Amino acid sequence: MRLGSGAEFDLIRRFLATPAAAADGAPGVRVGPGDDCAVITGDGIALTVDMAVEDVHFRRSWLEPREIGYRAAAGALSDLAAMAARPVGILASLALGPGDEDELGPAVMEGVAAAASDAGAVLLGGDVTRSPGPLVLDIVAAGQAARPVLRSGARPGDELWVTGTLGGAAAAVAAWIDGREPEPAARTAFARPTPRIREALWLAEREVPTAMVDLSDGVAGDAGHIAAASDVRVVIHGPALPLGPGLAPGATANAGARSAAGGVTGAGSASSAASLEVLRLAAAGGEDYELCFSASPGSVAAVAAEFEVVFGVPLTRVGRVEPGSGAVVLDATGSAVELEGFQHWRAR
Amino acid sequence: MRLGSGAEFDLIRRFLATPAAAADGAPGVRVGPGDDCAVITGDGIALTVDMAVEDVHFRRSWLEPREIGYRAAAGALSDLAAMAARPVGILASLALGPGDEDELGPAVMEGVAAAASDAGAVLLGGDVTRSPGPLVLDIVAAGQAARPVLRSGARPGDELWVTGTLGGAAAAVAAWIDGREPEPAARTAFARPTPRIREALWLAEREVPTAMVDLSDGVAGDAGHIAAASDVRVVIHGPALPLGPGLAPGATANAGARSAAGGVTGAGSASSAASLEVLRLAAAGGEDYELCFSASPGSVAAVAAEFEVVFGVPLTRVGRVEPGSGAVVLDATGSAVELEGFQHWRAR
Repeated sequence: MRLGSGAEFDLIRRFLATPAAAADGAPGVRVGPGDDCAVITGDGIALTVDMAVEDVHFRRSWLEPREIGYRAAAGALSDLAAMAARPVGILASLALGPGDEDELGPAVMEGVAAAASDAGAVLLGGDVTRSPGPLVLDIVAAGQAARPVLRSGARPGDELWVTGTLGGAAAAVAAWIDGREPEPAARTAFARPTPRIREALWLAEREVPTAMVDLSDGVAGDAGHIAAASDVRVVIHGPALPLGPGLAPGATANAGARSAAGGVTGAGSASSAASLEVLRLAAAGGEDYELCFSASPGSVAAVAAEFEVVFGVPLTRVGRVEPGSGAVVLDATGSAVELEGFQHWRAR
Repeated sequence: MRLGSGAEFDLIRRFLATPAAAADGAPGVRVGPGDDCAVITGDGIALTVDMAVEDVHFRRSWLEPREIGYRAAAGALSDLAAMAARPVGILASLALGPGDEDELGPAVMEGVAAAASDAGAVLLGGDVTRSPGPLVLDIVAAGQAARPVLRSGARPGDELWVTGTLGGAAAAVAAWIDGREPEPAARTAFARPTPRIREALWLAEREVPTAMVDLSDGVAGDAGHIAAASDVRVVIHGPALPLGPGLAPGATANAGARSAAGGVTGAGSASSAASLEVLRLAAAGGEDYELCFSASPGSVAAVAAEFEVVFGVPLTRVGRVEPGSGAVVLDATGSAVELEGFQHWRAR
């Protein structure tokens, strides 16, 4: 790894030399930042990488620099949660535009370090470079996964569950794109997501999940990964999806008009268009960073009350696993909801 | 990790699903591509990340797309070599501009896969995203390092050695910037560097290196990392540096004029300016991806002949370790060579 070859990156480099970040001696870390590589130990090491590009995954006007870093790191850490891996370290690569090296870059790294710290991980290194283009932040997360929970273990008859609530981050983005300020809780869902690491470890210790993913692209798409890897069909009951902040009826007054303007099909009356928009935000809006997992019938019910007391996070049964293939979201009438091409905001 | 949320990335995603890349069952790999994380095993796992940005680290007009990928991956793998870590896997994040997803992106990934394969590693995953900006490629390399060779083990009295030859990649860049086509061997040094992985493992098995780095920024700067980590002074004898392709006198006919145009100070006669330029390219041009290591007196001499037979790569003694701090390059008269600010081409 490198840490930028120019003196202009000294401020950022400092993040990897502060006592809090100097990871030598942290659990699972044999060599911390400052050498050619970091070295970690463990029976099984889970590795993931997640790239965030300005004006594709976020806009600078939406987020504080610290939030840009926090959110990107939380996204990578959420992948560790999806494997029930215990976070060990983060490496962060940062491409900075002209003038971003003095304030923006260090603030972004502060956010990365905060997300790492909140997850029990340390900053292990990274790379910093100039760029003539948008801010690019690529986060590597490494964790210990002695018994990783894969996507491939779902069986017909299993129930499908999610942690937390869905669609809050997407509601914030929808508000920004409409020129509105999002509800504070929806904004937080986007700007400072909480990877469900402890929750995943807790569930995995009890051998509850048969398969698990985190929700980065929305439950419809991500449950499709479980369906594909497990060779099963996943049926999601749309009305059961736990709605996140910003998706209460009042907050989506514009949703019908917006979805119509966006060319969304199938909207009927204004109120059904609004409820369809809410369902789409919850099912396919993405960036929730909640867990979605399959479990044997009754196994979640046996622990759900304790889970909710321990973590203050709801567990919601949202569907079932059947023989077949693919994932589908059904509306209240049992019809499949059209979600294809929904994430139009990402194309801007 | 994600693999791009749109269908436009299917071609690239396919790289991570082909039998050659499907790494389940490869040595050290417990879970290959396709889940939220890859999972690798090993007593000590070395991790590094290296970001390459178009028009900062390379230009599209200089390289074939496949070379862009190969070169970036080789740079990260070279960090593993510097720790004497055995490569296990690569994760690649790719930000692609409009129109790059069909041909450029897959070709870049081909180059990444080829570099991984040449190093005995497999593609473990990655992320692909659109970007409104330049091509950005971020490479994570993971390897097994049961006994990593650190930067901190150099002792006064040690000798300083390098593998291979230096300055070839920098000579290629200098040629391109001058509007000339580089010598083929110099071009290869830049476009398709060979990380010295087997060489590093061989030396480390024999416990030869007391400290080691790879040469990404040039021996002057990189030996400075050994000096800082080991709390010693490293003295490099400039005339001893083994010159790479493109640094023969004929190839640098323009060097004096170019360095003068670049504001380089200290150039005397045309011929001494040319030789100063050669020395600077070799000592501070960067991107050599050779190894630089300290070793007890005589320990390299005892194995050098066998090393050169096995690998066909020269070992050259280029300096010594003394009490003190910092790294310095001396010219034939014993004067320190001014290298500050030499890498001006990187700023373009």
